[in-house]
Amino acid sequence: MSSTAGKVIRCKAAVAWEAGKPLVIEEVEVAPPQANEVRLKILYTSLCHTDVYFWEAKGQTPLFPRIFGHEAGGIVESVGEGVKDLSPGDHVLPVFTGECKECRHCKSEESNMCDLLRINTDRGVMIGDEKSRFSINGKPIYHFVGTSTFSEYTVVHVGCVAKINPEAPLDKVCVLSCGISTGLGATLNVAKPPKGSTVAIFGLGAVGLAAAEGARLAGASRIIGVDLNSSRFEAAKKFGVTEFVNPKDHNKPVQEVLAEMTGGGVDRSVECTGNVSAMISAFECVHDGWGVAVLVGVPNKDDTFKTHPMNLLNERTLKGTFFGNYKPRTDLPSVVEKYMKKELELEKFITHSVPFSEINKAFEYMLQGDGLRCIIRMDG
Amino acid sequence: MSSTAGKVIRCKAAVAWEAGKPLVIEEVEVAPPQANEVRLKILYTSLCHTDVYFWEAKGQTPLFPRIFGHEAGGIVESVGEGVKDLSPGDHVLPVFTGECKECRHCKSEESNMCDLLRINTDRGVMIGDEKSRFSINGKPIYHFVGTSTFSEYTVVHVGCVAKINPEAPLDKVCVLSCGISTGLGATLNVAKPPKGSTVAIFGLGAVGLAAAEGARLAGASRIIGVDLNSSRFEAAKKFGVTEFVNPKDHNKPVQEVLAEMTGGGVDRSVECTGNVSAMISAFECVHDGWGVAVLVGVPNKDDTFKTHPMNLLNERTLKGTFFGNYKPRTDLPSVVEKYMKKELELEKFITHSVPFSEINKAFEYMLQGDGLRCIIRMDG
Repeated sequence: MSSTAGKVIRCKAAVAWEAGKPLVIEEVEVAPPQANEVRLKILYTSLCHTDVYFWEAKGQTPLFPRIFGHEAGGIVESVGEGVKDLSPGDHVLPVFTGECKECRHCKSEESNMCDLLRINTDRGVMIGDEKSRFSINGKPIYHFVGTSTFSEYTVVHVGCVAKINPEAPLDKVCVLSCGISTGLGATLNVAKPPKGSTVAIFGLGAVGLAAAEGARLAGASRIIGVDLNSSRFEAAKKFGVTEFVNPKDHNKPVQEVLAEMTGGGVDRSVECTGNVSAMISAFECVHDGWGVAVLVGVPNKDDTFKTHPMNLLNERTLKGTFFGNYKPRTDLPSVVEKYMKKELELEKFITHSVPFSEINKAFEYMLQGDGLRCIIRMDG
Repeated sequence: MSSTAGKVIRCKAAVAWEAGKPLVIEEVEVAPPQANEVRLKILYTSLCHTDVYFWEAKGQTPLFPRIFGHEAGGIVESVGEGVKDLSPGDHVLPVFTGECKECRHCKSEESNMCDLLRINTDRGVMIGDEKSRFSINGKPIYHFVGTSTFSEYTVVHVGCVAKINPEAPLDKVCVLSCGISTGLGATLNVAKPPKGSTVAIFGLGAVGLAAAEGARLAGASRIIGVDLNSSRFEAAKKFGVTEFVNPKDHNKPVQEVLAEMTGGGVDRSVECTGNVSAMISAFECVHDGWGVAVLVGVPNKDDTFKTHPMNLLNERTLKGTFFGNYKPRTDLPSVVEKYMKKELELEKFITHSVPFSEINKAFEYMLQGDGLRCIIRMDG
């Protein structure tokens, strides 16, 4: 039992006081974990586009002051009442969506959309008592997606914590908490390209490149990257992308370009942009008879997916996925093992690293489209 | 070798001289089968909605005079050059779509959409020499979907003929040539409902009831029939349908009604109407996390399938199927065996029977919506 167990911990956290304004490193109080909660010491966290999206608060109800952050690696400091699966000292990845292991979704082999702990971007408090565990001089600071990893310590529901191999370097595997697993799982768990097949990846950001990495691991022979930014192709080669198509270079729909390149269509496609036109192209570019299109990107709320139903009748399949269909607690440890066995390469996703004191630089890199993942070192 | 092999056969056929006009039983000449063709003696044929649709010729380029018919059972009379898989005397089902066993589709485990012999409703001639094998006084009569079973003898490409167990009663298994296999396979091969699951079937005609029969065989615990005609529910019970919803009885979308009945959505749905609104409902009524919707019905050419992409992101799957994903030559023999083992019940689909001379009565039954399948006895 650590000497801090049961006590309030005072530590540094990066607080977002207002939408779009630089985070401020503050001293916060972190209350002890309550029933079914654990308190984690965060060692490394990385910045994902979703943090930036909710920090900008352009498309949703703003909730401030708030502590963002949801891709991270840490160590259990103490556990609340009823927690049996985790102990102080365990190495873990906190996850923005959970696995209660009791609901119909958790009991289904197919779903990871837990009824209790499914992602909730509007909730800024713990699910158990609807209170925050963070405060400054008694004034509560809101949580973000149940993780709030831009803090030296954070409190998370036990259902949102994956216990991993303690040998795994947390400064690398922390990126598996969200984006990289999302793309990787979309290909490996949902698209499931057969060895030797042709896969199109729409969008060559971190999630799309993780989807390409999945296609590479699955043994796809052609991986065609589709992006509006041609400068992304060079870097994408490291992730197995063999060919590149920029829709702006063609005066016909990109699905027709892809069909011509592949004798009728690709075997699998994975859409990682969230743009509804790209979703439609990603569906219509798969081969009839066996093609499978997987949608990963999150659409705008007013978007409509439209296609001629004959495209479906011709034996195409359209599927969506959430967090790569990984169940956080059950499946993430094995993704970490893929890295440990050197099958999955994580280093190439990590393009920057900054000390915690310079966390706002990570936001700048992302806003400038510079690099893929920036690791934030909490001890710095 | 039969005494007729290599010679023209003169026999009776029901000729459609004009769109929508009663068929006329005529004496026709049936030429011998050419390379990769077989000539069949048809014993039983049944009427499917697709025959009526192309006979009415309201939505397509008319092609007359023509011999319709594509659900049938018969015996090989003679074979053309290069035919090795079939011999005179074999019991067979001709099929409107084929399996060349050479193309990418035939070599794929997933597809049955043969590049060479895929259904072609516009072609009225044989694929080998682009000529008809039927004539009256030297004037050619067009074929229909490569089968033209409303004739005592017909010529079919060997890739469109399934050799079946000679013990199987052709007056029953002839209905497996099209509609019944289409619905059955949509459920068994594509929707694949787990035992104990809940399945919604949209449209309770012959194809929809075959889809329900598939759900019954798969061990579904609830089979919910959806149809605009409430009188169909009573008969549907024989096919395993346990509950019934008429969208006209509700003032909210039927997908919401089904979600309320099932705690969030059905596990599987199969759409057998071809109406694009029903397709959208069938997709949106499946449960998030694991639901699979299968589209069977053929849409109009101007239809658009529309849905919010979030419905996909929430881990629903949308698939289309053609002929229940059965490969005609490889898979139909095993469907016949399901009937022989008394797992699959075909008798309940057969509601009428007429002699060949009264074939127009079968059209009347279908146009009146009376019954499911009418068997036409070629010896009558």
